[in-house]
Amino acid sequence: MTARVRVPASSSNLGAGFDCIGIAVDRWLVASVTLERAGAKGFSIRRHGKLSAVKVRPDQDLFTRGFRAACAAGGGVTPAGVTIDATSDIPVGCGLGSSAAAIVAGAMLADAALGLRLSRAQILEIGTTIEGHPDNIAPAIYGGAVLSVRTPAGLVSTSLRVADGLALLIVVPPFPSDTKAARAVLPRTVPHSDAVSAASRAAALVQGLSSGDGALLAAALDDVLHVPFRRARIPGYDAVVTAAQDAGAFGATLSGAGSAIVAIAPRERSAAVGTAMLAAWRAIGIEAELIACTSPVAGAMVTHVPQTVQPVSTEIS
Amino acid sequence: MTARVRVPASSSNLGAGFDCIGIAVDRWLVASVTLERAGAKGFSIRRHGKLSAVKVRPDQDLFTRGFRAACAAGGGVTPAGVTIDATSDIPVGCGLGSSAAAIVAGAMLADAALGLRLSRAQILEIGTTIEGHPDNIAPAIYGGAVLSVRTPAGLVSTSLRVADGLALLIVVPPFPSDTKAARAVLPRTVPHSDAVSAASRAAALVQGLSSGDGALLAAALDDVLHVPFRRARIPGYDAVVTAAQDAGAFGATLSGAGSAIVAIAPRERSAAVGTAMLAAWRAIGIEAELIACTSPVAGAMVTHVPQTVQPVSTEIS
Repeated sequence: MTARVRVPASSSNLGAGFDCIGIAVDRWLVASVTLERAGAKGFSIRRHGKLSAVKVRPDQDLFTRGFRAACAAGGGVTPAGVTIDATSDIPVGCGLGSSAAAIVAGAMLADAALGLRLSRAQILEIGTTIEGHPDNIAPAIYGGAVLSVRTPAGLVSTSLRVADGLALLIVVPPFPSDTKAARAVLPRTVPHSDAVSAASRAAALVQGLSSGDGALLAAALDDVLHVPFRRARIPGYDAVVTAAQDAGAFGATLSGAGSAIVAIAPRERSAAVGTAMLAAWRAIGIEAELIACTSPVAGAMVTHVPQTVQPVSTEIS
Repeated sequence: MTARVRVPASSSNLGAGFDCIGIAVDRWLVASVTLERAGAKGFSIRRHGKLSAVKVRPDQDLFTRGFRAACAAGGGVTPAGVTIDATSDIPVGCGLGSSAAAIVAGAMLADAALGLRLSRAQILEIGTTIEGHPDNIAPAIYGGAVLSVRTPAGLVSTSLRVADGLALLIVVPPFPSDTKAARAVLPRTVPHSDAVSAASRAAALVQGLSSGDGALLAAALDDVLHVPFRRARIPGYDAVVTAAQDAGAFGATLSGAGSAIVAIAPRERSAAVGTAMLAAWRAIGIEAELIACTSPVAGAMVTHVPQTVQPVSTEIS
């Protein structure tokens, strides 16, 4: 084993932050890599934990794609034999950034094992290119809440302040959501007035996370751009959201494109909110899993590096 | 004279903060009121300064409407004779909140002169009802930059942090913009992708104002929801915006619905940016007026109250 990394789960959108805001979640993918410099063994992926169910050919695997893209970006040659051993407790396909975590892990393993000295901004670029959007990649790398905006000058990702005392409660049902299908239900156009409302709520999300203002967070979690078109795909969605609000959450919404549902609540209401959300699903026969984050979650980190290379830079750029 | 107030100008939208974000501007409307408790003289408005050009019947005047609405909200009876004497250096009809300032002044004069003890939140409610939207009313009352979001629980207005070192440069041409016509050019629907982009830029505006991050502010000032449809109505718009950017501004956009153009720049570039914007308009024969704000501008304040009533509360709610 030459390098090991751990990468957190993440919840994107958070209502009005559609495709631009994500927040790290306290579930982790841990992966290590072993390299062979000669021979022609290619990639081998060993999956454990929640990754056991993933069936993808090693050359198309997201670890492989992240690893190879990092090698290309770092000007290095991909080693002849790469064995990645990975375990994860991040639910797969439920809107918790398991794909983003795998891509980031692959890229950071290459960076650490080969001493490529890529910046976090480069890892973000690599991950966003593979994933197609930055909203899970950025919090997986930086931790905490991150805003990513496409600008004429390129992608800008910036950490957002999150007020002390806010908790994230996520309930994960035992069925995944098909992200492509969730994209397909979005309309081509929306009323101008909805776009105006959506913009004010995205602004409210940034300000609400920073200040902890419950009224702003309630408005921000009540999205108009994607949730109205997606919620019918998740049985019990309205009941779970209402249960969260009734138990003291500021609001609740889809995590990513679902299937998980995320609530933001005052920390002292977190136990009640989590219990209420689980109970609302249980009432219709769905046994969900609860993830509670009552304090900020760190970003990806290298936990073991080979003796022969310098540790990867860990500054936030 | 029984009460006097001063109310600042304001610049709304700031690009991506369409209909929800506004910032106070260092131009002022100063108004005083004299009351007669008996007789039936009604309202009399004396206008000076930039208000001299306003020709509106006293009973339809915005001072009158703000005054009367405050009396109604305060449960008081509108006095028999009300004389308002007002002067202002806020350009009228150019997107600098002169209407909002007059409404707020009228309401605050009633509050101060009659001891109604209205909260600022009530003045905001009164002003928003008359004006139709809160984005100039809120900064006129609270000062600084303010985000206003309509939520199911009502209107929420909250002060935004503005990084030290940011300057606002506003150039005002000698022609007004018709706000109703500027609304009429907006499309009924927009592509979903534009709405998504607009939301991320509204988030970028809040975060950019707070952090001073130039890349975020550049994205935020490059609006997609209203400016593309309105800029053709302002001759020289593109040249003035480009001149501001070339001189070191993060970006520039319409102030409100125009006709003024506002740039956000690092304070040390403010003189160069202002000069460049004026020059770009002068090159096509338009002599504009420059308003430079290099530090935060306070909100409305009562500067004289009658001896017989308590001063109006000045806390920010």
